[in-house]
Amino acid sequence: MREREGLFLAEGPQAVREVVAHRPETILDLYFEALPGSGQPRVRQADLLDAGRAVGVSVREVSHEVLVAMSDALVPQGVVAVCRPIDVNMDSVLAGPPRLLVILANVRDPGNAGTVIRGADAAGADGVLLSDSSVDIYNPKVVRSTAGSLFHLPIATGIPIGTLLDRVRAAGLALLAADGSGDTLLADADLTGSHAWVMGNEAWGLEPAVTAACDTVVRVPIYGRAESLNLAMAATLCLYQSAGVQKRSEIR
Amino acid sequence: MREREGLFLAEGPQAVREVVAHRPETILDLYFEALPGSGQPRVRQADLLDAGRAVGVSVREVSHEVLVAMSDALVPQGVVAVCRPIDVNMDSVLAGPPRLLVILANVRDPGNAGTVIRGADAAGADGVLLSDSSVDIYNPKVVRSTAGSLFHLPIATGIPIGTLLDRVRAAGLALLAADGSGDTLLADADLTGSHAWVMGNEAWGLEPAVTAACDTVVRVPIYGRAESLNLAMAATLCLYQSAGVQKRSEIR
Repeated sequence: MREREGLFLAEGPQAVREVVAHRPETILDLYFEALPGSGQPRVRQADLLDAGRAVGVSVREVSHEVLVAMSDALVPQGVVAVCRPIDVNMDSVLAGPPRLLVILANVRDPGNAGTVIRGADAAGADGVLLSDSSVDIYNPKVVRSTAGSLFHLPIATGIPIGTLLDRVRAAGLALLAADGSGDTLLADADLTGSHAWVMGNEAWGLEPAVTAACDTVVRVPIYGRAESLNLAMAATLCLYQSAGVQKRSEIR
Repeated sequence: MREREGLFLAEGPQAVREVVAHRPETILDLYFEALPGSGQPRVRQADLLDAGRAVGVSVREVSHEVLVAMSDALVPQGVVAVCRPIDVNMDSVLAGPPRLLVILANVRDPGNAGTVIRGADAAGADGVLLSDSSVDIYNPKVVRSTAGSLFHLPIATGIPIGTLLDRVRAAGLALLAADGSGDTLLADADLTGSHAWVMGNEAWGLEPAVTAACDTVVRVPIYGRAESLNLAMAATLCLYQSAGVQKRSEIR
Protein backbone atom coordinates (compact mmCIF):
# COMPACT_ATOMS: atom_id res chain seq x y z
CA MET A 1 0.00 0.00 0.00
CA ARG A 2 2.58 2.57 1.01
CA GLU A 3 4.75 1.78 -2.00
CA ARG A 4 1.81 2.76 -4.16
CA GLU A 5 0.82 5.93 -2.43
CA GLY A 6 3.80 7.09 -0.36
CA LEU A 7 1.85 6.43 2.82
CA PHE A 8 2.39 4.10 5.74
CA LEU A 9 0.29 2.30 8.32
CA ALA A 10 0.31 2.49 12.09
CA GLU A 11 -1.23 -0.86 13.00
CA GLY A 12 -2.87 -1.96 16.21
CA PRO A 13 -4.12 -0.06 19.27
CA GLN A 14 -0.72 0.91 20.67
CA ALA A 15 0.70 2.43 17.48
CA VAL A 16 -2.61 4.14 16.67
CA ARG A 17 -2.86 5.59 20.18
CA GLU A 18 0.64 7.04 19.90
CA VAL A 19 0.15 8.58 16.47
CA VAL A 20 -3.18 10.11 17.54
CA ALA A 21 -1.58 11.54 20.67
CA HIS A 22 1.69 12.77 19.19
CA ARG A 23 1.40 13.11 15.40
CA PRO A 24 -2.30 13.56 14.58
CA GLU A 25 -1.46 15.87 11.68
CA THR A 26 0.07 12.94 9.78
CA ILE A 27 -3.08 10.76 9.87
CA LEU A 28 -5.24 10.59 6.76
CA ASP A 29 -7.79 8.09 8.06
CA LEU A 30 -8.42 5.68 10.89
CA TYR A 31 -9.98 2.35 10.00
CA PHE A 32 -11.47 -0.04 12.50
CA GLU A 33 -13.11 -3.41 12.33
CA ALA A 34 -16.44 -3.59 14.14
CA LEU A 35 -17.29 -6.53 16.32
CA PRO A 36 -19.37 -8.93 14.20
CA GLY A 37 -23.02 -7.85 13.99
CA SER A 38 -22.67 -4.91 16.37
CA GLY A 39 -21.36 -2.00 14.28
CA GLN A 40 -19.34 -1.13 17.41
CA PRO A 41 -15.58 -1.15 17.79
CA ARG A 42 -13.94 -3.55 20.18
CA VAL A 43 -14.42 -2.12 23.66
CA ARG A 44 -10.80 -1.24 24.34
CA GLN A 45 -10.57 0.64 21.06
CA ALA A 46 -13.62 2.87 21.44
CA ASP A 47 -11.68 5.56 23.33
CA LEU A 48 -9.05 5.48 20.66
CA LEU A 49 -11.54 6.20 17.89
CA ASP A 50 -13.05 9.02 19.94
CA ALA A 51 -9.57 10.46 20.46
CA GLY A 52 -9.05 10.31 16.70
CA ARG A 53 -12.35 12.08 16.01
CA ALA A 54 -11.45 14.71 18.64
CA VAL A 55 -8.37 15.70 16.66
CA GLY A 56 -10.33 15.82 13.42
CA VAL A 57 -9.34 12.48 11.92
CA SER A 58 -11.88 10.64 9.78
CA VAL A 59 -12.80 7.30 11.35
CA ARG A 60 -14.21 4.56 9.13
CA GLU A 61 -15.55 1.10 9.78
CA VAL A 62 -14.26 -1.64 7.50
CA SER A 63 -14.81 -5.38 7.26
CA HIS A 64 -12.35 -7.87 8.64
CA GLU A 65 -11.38 -8.77 5.08
CA VAL A 66 -10.53 -5.18 4.20
CA LEU A 67 -8.45 -4.78 7.35
CA VAL A 68 -6.54 -7.99 6.57
CA ALA A 69 -5.91 -6.74 3.03
CA MET A 70 -4.63 -3.37 4.31
CA SER A 71 -2.50 -4.81 7.03
CA ASP A 72 1.01 -6.18 6.98
CA ALA A 73 0.38 -8.16 10.18
CA LEU A 74 -0.92 -11.71 9.86
CA VAL A 75 -3.42 -11.03 12.64
CA PRO A 76 -4.56 -7.40 12.40
CA GLN A 77 -5.46 -5.92 15.76
CA GLY A 78 -8.72 -4.26 14.79
CA VAL A 79 -7.49 -0.76 14.00
CA VAL A 80 -5.05 0.95 11.64
CA ALA A 81 -4.15 4.55 10.88
CA VAL A 82 -3.13 5.49 7.35
CA CYS A 83 -0.42 8.11 7.76
CA ARG A 84 1.69 10.47 5.71
CA PRO A 85 5.42 10.16 6.33
CA ILE A 86 6.59 12.52 9.06
CA ASP A 87 8.86 15.03 7.41
CA VAL A 88 11.64 15.94 9.85
CA ASN A 89 14.49 18.13 8.73
CA MET A 90 17.94 17.49 10.17
CA ASP A 91 18.30 21.21 10.85
CA SER A 92 15.35 21.17 13.23
CA VAL A 93 16.88 18.27 15.14
CA LEU A 94 20.23 20.05 15.41
CA ALA A 95 18.68 23.40 16.35
CA GLY A 96 17.56 21.94 19.69
CA PRO A 97 20.43 22.00 20.57
CA PRO A 98 20.49 18.26 21.25
CA ARG A 99 22.46 16.68 24.08
CA LEU A 100 22.08 13.07 22.91
CA LEU A 101 21.51 11.77 19.38
CA VAL A 102 21.74 8.46 17.55
CA ILE A 103 23.07 8.17 14.03
CA LEU A 104 22.29 4.98 12.11
CA ALA A 105 24.87 4.44 9.38
CA ASN A 106 23.77 1.84 6.85
CA VAL A 107 21.46 -0.01 9.23
CA ARG A 108 19.31 -2.31 7.12
CA ASP A 109 17.56 -4.68 9.49
CA PRO A 110 14.05 -3.36 10.25
CA GLY A 111 13.74 -4.99 13.68
CA ASN A 112 17.08 -3.62 14.84
CA ALA A 113 16.38 -0.13 13.47
CA GLY A 114 12.96 0.02 15.10
CA THR A 115 14.28 -1.25 18.40
CA VAL A 116 17.09 1.33 18.39
CA ILE A 117 14.49 4.06 17.87
CA ARG A 118 12.52 2.65 20.82
CA GLY A 119 15.70 2.55 22.93
CA ALA A 120 16.61 6.11 21.93
CA ASP A 121 13.17 7.26 23.04
CA ALA A 122 13.38 5.35 26.33
CA ALA A 123 16.82 6.82 27.03
CA GLY A 124 15.49 10.32 26.42
CA ALA A 125 17.57 10.99 23.30
CA ASP A 126 16.74 14.14 21.36
CA GLY A 127 16.51 12.51 17.95
CA VAL A 128 17.62 9.83 15.53
CA LEU A 129 19.35 10.50 12.21
CA LEU A 130 19.52 7.82 9.52
CA SER A 131 21.97 7.74 6.64
CA ASP A 132 20.55 7.46 3.14
CA SER A 133 21.66 3.83 2.90
CA SER A 134 19.64 2.78 5.95
CA VAL A 135 16.29 1.00 6.06
CA ASP A 136 13.02 2.86 5.34
CA ILE A 137 11.63 3.78 8.77
CA TYR A 138 8.09 3.33 7.42
CA ASN A 139 8.73 -0.32 6.67
CA PRO A 140 5.99 -2.13 8.65
CA LYS A 141 8.54 -4.08 10.70
CA VAL A 142 10.32 -0.89 11.70
CA VAL A 143 7.04 0.78 12.65
CA ARG A 144 6.06 -2.23 14.76
CA SER A 145 9.46 -2.54 16.47
CA THR A 146 9.40 1.09 17.56
CA ALA A 147 6.27 0.34 19.64
CA GLY A 148 5.05 3.92 19.12
CA SER A 149 8.42 5.64 19.58
CA LEU A 150 8.38 6.51 15.88
CA PHE A 151 5.88 9.20 16.86
CA HIS A 152 7.72 10.42 19.98
CA LEU A 153 11.03 11.81 18.87
CA PRO A 154 12.26 13.54 15.72
CA ILE A 155 13.78 11.21 13.12
CA ALA A 156 15.51 12.60 10.04
CA THR A 157 16.35 10.27 7.16
CA GLY A 158 18.01 10.06 3.79
CA ILE A 159 21.19 12.00 4.57
CA PRO A 160 24.58 10.89 3.18
CA ILE A 161 26.65 9.64 6.11
CA GLY A 162 29.51 12.09 5.48
CA THR A 163 27.14 15.05 5.56
CA LEU A 164 25.49 13.67 8.65
CA LEU A 165 28.74 13.38 10.60
CA ASP A 166 29.95 16.81 9.48
CA ARG A 167 26.72 18.55 10.41
CA VAL A 168 26.39 16.86 13.79
CA ARG A 169 29.96 17.77 14.67
CA ALA A 170 29.41 21.33 13.49
CA ALA A 171 26.44 21.50 15.87
CA GLY A 172 28.88 20.91 18.73
CA LEU A 173 28.30 17.23 19.44
CA ALA A 174 31.11 14.73 19.93
CA LEU A 175 30.85 11.67 17.67
CA LEU A 176 31.12 8.31 19.42
CA ALA A 177 31.31 5.24 17.20
CA ALA A 178 30.01 2.05 18.81
CA ASP A 179 32.18 -0.75 17.50
CA GLY A 180 33.67 -3.99 18.79
CA SER A 181 37.08 -2.76 17.63
CA GLY A 182 37.00 0.24 19.98
CA ASP A 183 39.87 1.07 22.33
CA THR A 184 37.62 2.77 24.87
CA LEU A 185 35.33 0.69 27.07
CA LEU A 186 31.80 2.00 27.44
CA ALA A 187 32.26 2.60 31.19
CA ASP A 188 35.36 4.72 30.46
CA ALA A 189 33.86 6.89 27.71
CA ASP A 190 33.37 10.57 28.52
CA LEU A 191 29.63 11.02 28.14
CA THR A 192 29.10 14.25 30.07
CA GLY A 193 28.98 16.57 27.06
CA SER A 194 26.59 16.58 24.10
CA HIS A 195 27.27 13.65 21.83
CA ALA A 196 25.90 11.36 19.14
CA TRP A 197 26.24 7.58 19.06
CA VAL A 198 27.10 6.29 15.59
CA MET A 199 25.80 2.76 15.07
CA GLY A 200 26.69 0.62 12.04
CA ASN A 201 25.23 -2.18 9.99
CA GLU A 202 23.95 -5.18 11.99
CA ALA A 203 26.12 -7.64 10.08
CA TRP A 204 29.36 -5.88 9.19
CA GLY A 205 29.52 -2.95 11.58
CA LEU A 206 30.83 0.50 10.73
CA GLU A 207 32.88 1.29 7.67
CA PRO A 208 36.46 2.28 8.52
CA ALA A 209 35.93 5.74 7.03
CA VAL A 210 33.07 6.30 9.45
CA THR A 211 34.94 5.18 12.57
CA ALA A 212 37.88 7.30 11.43
CA ALA A 213 35.62 10.34 11.28
CA CYS A 214 34.45 9.84 14.87
CA ASP A 215 36.13 11.27 17.98
CA THR A 216 36.13 8.03 19.97
CA VAL A 217 35.48 4.39 19.12
CA VAL A 218 33.71 2.77 22.05
CA ARG A 219 33.43 -0.94 22.79
CA VAL A 220 30.75 -2.63 24.85
CA PRO A 221 32.64 -5.30 26.82
CA ILE A 222 31.80 -8.97 26.28
CA TYR A 223 32.28 -10.78 29.60
CA GLY A 224 31.24 -14.26 28.43
CA ARG A 225 31.65 -16.24 25.22
CA ALA A 226 29.15 -14.43 22.99
CA GLU A 227 30.76 -13.16 19.84
CA SER A 228 28.84 -9.91 20.02
CA LEU A 229 25.62 -8.21 21.03
CA ASN A 230 23.05 -7.39 18.42
CA LEU A 231 22.82 -3.80 17.25
CA ALA A 232 19.72 -2.96 19.29
CA MET A 233 21.21 -4.34 22.51
CA ALA A 234 24.50 -2.50 22.02
CA ALA A 235 22.69 0.73 21.19
CA THR A 236 20.45 0.43 24.25
CA LEU A 237 23.45 -0.09 26.53
CA CYS A 238 25.30 2.90 25.03
CA LEU A 239 22.25 5.16 25.19
CA TYR A 240 21.41 4.25 28.77
CA GLN A 241 25.01 4.79 29.80
CA SER A 242 24.78 8.28 28.27
CA ALA A 243 21.41 8.98 29.88
CA GLY A 244 22.67 7.90 33.31
CA VAL A 245 25.76 10.11 33.08
CA GLN A 246 23.90 13.13 31.68
CA LYS A 247 21.11 12.90 34.29
CA ARG A 248 23.68 12.70 37.10
CA SER A 249 25.57 15.69 35.72
CA GLU A 250 22.31 17.67 35.60
CA ILE A 251 21.75 17.03 39.31
CA ARG A 252 25.19 18.29 40.29
CA MET B 1 11.50 -32.00 11.80
CA ARG B 2 12.25 -31.65 15.49
CA GLU B 3 8.62 -32.14 16.44
CA ARG B 4 8.82 -35.53 14.73
CA GLU B 5 12.07 -36.70 16.18
CA GLY B 6 12.81 -34.63 19.29
CA LEU B 7 15.80 -33.08 17.56
CA PHE B 8 16.65 -29.55 16.58
CA LEU B 9 18.71 -27.77 13.96
CA ALA B 10 21.63 -25.40 14.29
CA GLU B 11 21.44 -23.55 10.97
CA GLY B 12 24.11 -21.56 9.17
CA PRO B 13 27.86 -21.26 9.65
CA GLN B 14 27.82 -19.31 12.92
CA ALA B 15 25.49 -21.63 14.82
CA VAL B 16 27.20 -24.72 13.42
CA ARG B 17 30.63 -23.38 14.36
CA GLU B 18 29.50 -22.77 17.94
CA VAL B 19 27.87 -26.17 18.40
CA VAL B 20 30.93 -27.95 16.96
CA ALA B 21 33.21 -25.97 19.27
CA HIS B 22 31.16 -26.13 22.46
CA ARG B 23 28.61 -28.96 22.28
CA PRO B 24 29.91 -31.49 19.73
CA GLU B 25 28.40 -34.37 21.72
CA THR B 26 24.92 -33.18 20.85
CA ILE B 27 25.42 -33.31 17.07
CA LEU B 28 24.02 -36.27 15.16
CA ASP B 29 24.99 -35.14 11.67
CA LEU B 30 26.26 -32.16 9.77
CA TYR B 31 24.75 -31.52 6.35
CA PHE B 32 26.22 -29.18 3.79
CA GLU B 33 25.24 -28.06 0.35
CA ALA B 34 28.05 -28.34 -2.18
CA LEU B 35 28.71 -25.59 -4.65
CA PRO B 36 26.98 -26.57 -7.90
CA GLY B 37 29.01 -29.09 -9.92
CA SER B 38 32.01 -29.11 -7.59
CA GLY B 39 31.20 -31.56 -4.79
CA GLN B 40 33.01 -29.04 -2.56
CA PRO B 41 31.54 -27.00 0.25
CA ARG B 42 31.48 -23.22 0.02
CA VAL B 43 34.98 -22.04 0.76
CA ARG B 44 34.25 -20.37 4.10
CA GLN B 45 32.54 -23.52 5.35
CA ALA B 46 35.28 -26.04 4.55
CA ASP B 47 37.07 -25.44 7.88
CA LEU B 48 33.80 -25.92 9.66
CA LEU B 49 33.20 -29.33 8.13
CA ASP B 50 36.79 -30.37 8.95
CA ALA B 51 36.24 -29.23 12.53
CA GLY B 52 33.12 -31.37 12.64
CA ARG B 53 34.95 -34.42 11.29
CA ALA B 54 37.74 -33.82 13.82
CA VAL B 55 35.29 -34.25 16.69
CA GLY B 56 33.80 -37.38 15.13
CA VAL B 57 30.67 -35.91 13.59
CA SER B 58 29.36 -37.45 10.36
CA VAL B 59 29.40 -34.87 7.56
CA ARG B 60 27.10 -35.38 4.58
CA GLU B 61 26.59 -33.54 1.33
CA VAL B 62 22.99 -32.83 0.38
CA SER B 63 21.31 -31.04 -2.51
CA HIS B 64 20.04 -27.51 -2.23
CA GLU B 65 16.48 -28.88 -2.27
CA VAL B 66 17.11 -31.18 0.68
CA LEU B 67 18.70 -28.37 2.67
CA VAL B 68 15.74 -26.10 1.96
CA ALA B 69 13.36 -28.86 3.07
CA MET B 70 15.32 -29.40 6.31
CA SER B 71 15.70 -25.76 7.12
CA ASP B 72 13.39 -23.36 8.85
CA ALA B 73 15.15 -20.40 7.23
CA LEU B 74 13.86 -19.12 3.92
CA VAL B 75 17.41 -18.87 2.63
CA PRO B 76 19.48 -21.68 4.14
CA GLN B 77 23.10 -20.74 4.61
CA GLY B 78 24.67 -23.90 3.20
CA VAL B 79 25.17 -25.89 6.38
CA VAL B 80 23.06 -27.31 9.21
CA ALA B 81 23.77 -29.52 12.21
CA VAL B 82 21.07 -31.91 13.41
CA CYS B 83 21.36 -31.91 17.22
CA ARG B 84 19.93 -33.65 20.22
CA PRO B 85 18.54 -31.29 22.87
CA ILE B 86 21.16 -30.35 25.43
CA ASP B 87 20.03 -31.84 28.70
CA VAL B 88 21.01 -29.46 31.50
CA ASN B 89 19.87 -30.16 35.04
CA MET B 90 19.06 -27.21 37.29
CA ASP B 91 21.18 -28.78 40.03
CA SER B 92 24.31 -28.58 37.91
CA VAL B 93 23.67 -24.88 37.25
CA LEU B 94 23.16 -24.19 40.96
CA ALA B 95 26.17 -26.26 42.05
CA GLY B 96 28.50 -23.73 40.42
CA PRO B 97 27.88 -21.85 42.67
CA PRO B 98 26.60 -19.19 40.29
CA ARG B 99 27.05 -15.45 40.86
CA LEU B 100 24.67 -14.28 38.16
CA LEU B 101 21.67 -16.10 36.69
CA VAL B 102 18.63 -15.24 34.59
CA ILE B 103 15.22 -16.75 35.22
CA LEU B 104 12.65 -16.51 32.44
CA ALA B 105 9.13 -16.77 33.86
CA ASN B 106 6.53 -17.42 31.20
CA VAL B 107 8.52 -15.86 28.38
CA ARG B 108 6.84 -16.89 25.13
CA ASP B 109 8.32 -14.77 22.39
CA PRO B 110 11.14 -16.69 20.67
CA GLY B 111 13.10 -13.63 19.54
CA ASN B 112 13.07 -12.09 23.00
CA ALA B 113 14.01 -15.38 24.70
CA GLY B 114 16.89 -16.01 22.31
CA THR B 115 18.16 -12.46 22.64
CA VAL B 116 18.05 -12.66 26.45
CA ILE B 117 20.16 -15.83 26.26
CA ARG B 118 22.62 -13.98 24.01
CA GLY B 119 22.68 -11.06 26.44
CA ALA B 120 23.20 -13.38 29.42
CA ASP B 121 26.14 -14.95 27.64
CA ALA B 122 27.63 -11.56 26.72
CA ALA B 123 27.27 -10.35 30.32
CA GLY B 124 29.07 -13.45 31.58
CA ALA B 125 26.07 -14.91 33.42
CA ASP B 126 26.47 -18.43 34.76
CA GLY B 127 23.26 -19.83 33.33
CA VAL B 128 19.67 -19.32 32.29
CA LEU B 129 16.67 -21.08 33.86
CA LEU B 130 13.31 -21.19 32.09
CA SER B 131 9.96 -21.89 33.71
CA ASP B 132 7.86 -24.70 32.27
CA SER B 133 5.46 -22.19 30.73
CA SER B 134 8.20 -20.52 28.68
CA VAL B 135 9.01 -20.96 24.99
CA ASP B 136 10.85 -24.06 23.73
CA ILE B 137 14.50 -23.01 23.45
CA TYR B 138 14.91 -25.28 20.41
CA ASN B 139 12.32 -23.33 18.47
CA PRO B 140 14.24 -22.25 15.33
CA LYS B 141 13.68 -18.56 16.05
CA VAL B 142 15.11 -18.95 19.55
CA VAL B 143 18.13 -20.85 18.24
CA ARG B 144 18.73 -18.16 15.62
CA SER B 145 18.32 -15.25 18.06
CA THR B 146 20.88 -16.69 20.47
CA ALA B 147 23.55 -16.34 17.72
CA GLY B 148 25.39 -19.36 19.14
CA SER B 149 24.99 -18.50 22.82
CA LEU B 150 22.62 -21.47 23.18
CA PHE B 151 25.80 -23.57 23.13
CA HIS B 152 27.87 -21.38 25.46
CA LEU B 153 26.15 -21.37 28.82
CA PRO B 154 24.03 -23.90 30.70
CA ILE B 155 20.28 -23.53 30.17
CA ALA B 156 17.81 -25.55 32.24
CA THR B 157 14.16 -25.67 31.19
CA GLY B 158 10.75 -27.00 32.12
CA ILE B 159 10.77 -26.12 35.82
CA PRO B 160 7.63 -24.79 37.57
CA ILE B 161 8.29 -21.15 38.47
CA GLY B 162 7.65 -21.68 42.20
CA THR B 163 10.20 -24.48 42.36
CA LEU B 164 12.63 -22.41 40.37
CA LEU B 165 12.47 -19.42 42.71
CA ASP B 166 12.69 -21.62 45.84
CA ARG B 167 15.69 -23.53 44.58
CA VAL B 168 17.59 -20.48 43.41
CA ARG B 169 17.04 -18.75 46.75
CA ALA B 170 18.08 -21.89 48.62
CA ALA B 171 21.30 -21.83 46.61
CA GLY B 172 22.05 -18.45 48.20
CA LEU B 173 21.14 -16.08 45.39
CA ALA B 174 19.02 -12.97 45.86
CA LEU B 175 16.01 -12.78 43.55
CA LEU B 176 15.62 -9.52 41.62
CA ALA B 177 12.42 -9.07 39.65
CA ALA B 178 12.73 -6.75 36.66
CA ASP B 179 9.43 -4.96 36.37
CA GLY B 180 8.18 -1.51 35.42
CA SER B 181 6.32 -1.38 38.74
CA GLY B 182 9.54 -1.65 40.77
CA ASP B 183 10.36 0.76 43.60
CA THR B 184 14.11 0.37 43.17
CA LEU B 185 15.83 1.99 40.20
CA LEU B 186 18.36 -0.20 38.42
CA ALA B 187 21.25 2.12 39.35
CA ASP B 188 20.27 1.85 43.04
CA ALA B 189 19.92 -1.95 43.20
CA ASP B 190 22.49 -3.81 45.30
CA LEU B 191 24.15 -6.08 42.76
CA THR B 192 27.36 -6.96 44.57
CA GLY B 193 26.24 -10.36 45.85
CA SER B 194 25.11 -13.44 43.92
CA HIS B 195 21.72 -12.88 42.37
CA ALA B 196 19.26 -13.94 39.72
CA TRP B 197 17.26 -11.61 37.49
CA VAL B 198 13.66 -12.73 37.09
CA MET B 199 12.19 -11.59 33.76
CA GLY B 200 8.52 -11.92 32.87
CA ASN B 201 6.33 -12.30 29.84
CA GLU B 202 7.03 -9.83 27.02
CA ALA B 203 3.40 -8.61 26.91
CA TRP B 204 2.05 -8.73 30.45
CA GLY B 205 5.16 -8.78 32.65
CA LEU B 206 5.55 -10.77 35.84
CA GLU B 207 2.65 -12.28 37.75
CA PRO B 208 2.11 -10.61 41.14
CA ALA B 209 2.88 -13.90 42.93
CA VAL B 210 6.29 -13.96 41.26
CA THR B 211 7.23 -10.37 42.09
CA ALA B 212 6.00 -11.00 45.65
CA ALA B 213 8.38 -13.95 45.93
CA CYS B 214 11.38 -11.84 44.90
CA ASP B 215 13.62 -9.85 47.26
CA THR B 216 13.58 -6.64 45.24
CA VAL B 217 11.54 -5.36 42.32
CA VAL B 218 13.79 -3.30 40.08
CA ARG B 219 12.74 -0.77 37.48
CA VAL B 220 14.73 0.32 34.45
CA PRO B 221 14.08 4.07 34.20
CA ILE B 222 12.33 5.49 31.14
CA TYR B 223 13.75 8.97 30.47
CA GLY B 224 11.74 9.76 27.35
CA ARG B 225 8.21 9.03 26.20
CA ALA B 226 8.53 5.32 25.39
CA GLU B 227 5.99 3.24 27.27
CA SER B 228 8.55 0.55 27.97
CA LEU B 229 11.61 -1.30 26.73
CA ASN B 230 11.23 -4.72 25.19
CA LEU B 231 12.15 -7.71 27.32
CA ALA B 232 15.50 -8.32 25.67
CA MET B 233 16.59 -4.69 26.02
CA ALA B 234 15.55 -4.55 29.68
CA ALA B 235 17.30 -7.86 30.42
CA THR B 236 20.49 -6.70 28.69
CA LEU B 237 20.56 -3.48 30.71
CA CYS B 238 20.00 -5.37 34.00
CA LEU B 239 22.58 -8.03 33.21
CA TYR B 240 25.22 -5.53 32.16
CA GLN B 241 24.60 -3.48 35.28
CA SER B 242 25.21 -6.66 37.31
CA ALA B 243 28.29 -7.59 35.33
CA GLY B 244 29.77 -4.12 35.74
CA VAL B 245 29.21 -4.12 39.50
CA GLN B 246 30.44 -7.68 40.02
CA LYS B 247 33.57 -7.15 37.92
CA ARG B 248 34.41 -3.98 39.84
CA SER B 249 33.91 -5.77 43.17
CA GLU B 250 36.27 -8.55 42.01
CA ILE B 251 39.00 -6.00 41.35
CA ARG B 252 38.70 -4.45 44.79
